[in-house]
Amino acid sequence: MGPLATVDFLHKLVRATPADADQDHVPLVVRFCPEVPDRVQALLHGGPSPAPALVAAAQALQAAGAQCLAMPCHTAHAWYDELAAGVGVPVLHIADVAIAAAAGHPGGVGLLCTLGTRQAGIYRRRGPGVAWVESSADEQDRCVGPGIRAAKLGRLAQACELLGEAARALVRRGAGVVLMGCTEIPLALTEAEAGVPLVDPTDVLARACVAWALEGAR
Amino acid sequence: MGPLATVDFLHKLVRATPADADQDHVPLVVRFCPEVPDRVQALLHGGPSPAPALVAAAQALQAAGAQCLAMPCHTAHAWYDELAAGVGVPVLHIADVAIAAAAGHPGGVGLLCTLGTRQAGIYRRRGPGVAWVESSADEQDRCVGPGIRAAKLGRLAQACELLGEAARALVRRGAGVVLMGCTEIPLALTEAEAGVPLVDPTDVLARACVAWALEGAR
Repeated sequence: MGPLATVDFLHKLVRATPADADQDHVPLVVRFCPEVPDRVQALLHGGPSPAPALVAAAQALQAAGAQCLAMPCHTAHAWYDELAAGVGVPVLHIADVAIAAAAGHPGGVGLLCTLGTRQAGIYRRRGPGVAWVESSADEQDRCVGPGIRAAKLGRLAQACELLGEAARALVRRGAGVVLMGCTEIPLALTEAEAGVPLVDPTDVLARACVAWALEGAR
Repeated sequence: MGPLATVDFLHKLVRATPADADQDHVPLVVRFCPEVPDRVQALLHGGPSPAPALVAAAQALQAAGAQCLAMPCHTAHAWYDELAAGVGVPVLHIADVAIAAAAGHPGGVGLLCTLGTRQAGIYRRRGPGVAWVESSADEQDRCVGPGIRAAKLGRLAQACELLGEAARALVRRGAGVVLMGCTEIPLALTEAEAGVPLVDPTDVLARACVAWALEGAR
């Protein structure tokens, strides 16, 4: 839902497409939906539910010809079930593709995400067997939350520093890989700053969309 | 129509939006249309007309709720009149906003563009009073065409070198500003390489969209 994260997703999707000419690319229809109410507010503070706006946007995409949907926003996946039930086409789940990409790394899987994503169990529910390593309440308040907000505002150096501190804390508690569970995080955080391999769910979701399109084209 | 150029346009639009929160952004609906036939082929070599696909895409955007349209592809503006006639909402013209941005610079206005854009008169027809400085046939074949193709393929350093050489040739013939009349060019060319101020129509068009949205919101 963060518009820069959507741009990042589209950039990664275009770069991941094997193409020699404009005509080789994947047909896309995209909505930037600022009308969707704040997801974290809804989950944590009883704000208005984003579900109706999300389902309406998904149905509009389907009406515009989309045959597969993807949503480059983790927190919005708290309403994945309503959304998937509201449309007649497959909806890729960002946590499923990200968890698959994190598999095979030694040690636990560190998770950086919004408090909303965490409390909704976006990752835990899709990966109950994963050895998750999560931020402490203090790390969340001091580093992860402010880091995500800084990335949303384009303050990427500040965001990288805050998120790097949070990532290194996960590594000290046994994470062998860090999953960037909010689409704003890959805009800022680097592997050099984190000190371990990072999984970028935006990139993995973009690649899954391209694979879906190529598969369908065969 | 080049998908990286569309991503660049969206990035510039998001960055140009005054926003403190996701909810402050402009609602957008976007189509990436690889099904549109090659514009330069159609203009120069009798290839199939892109007009039906362009009009269909514009109508689909209007059906999806778009109240103002913009097309971050210069060559496709050869079919601007058909497109504007086929929808019931305003369509911003990339040359109009770019010509306005180039005004006020001393000297001629250098124009780097595809042969299709040039032969269709996308810029000359919208700016008949402008002192245009254009590439020679040799510069077009040797630098501009290959530079644009390199940018489309993501070979940005090579593209910057080729396009820089073409820009400097325009400056030697009196250009005081260079208008980057193909949306792939700003992906690669820098003012340092060109040696004069550059007008980036992608950025100018993005700002015009934001201004339109803010104006409408008042």
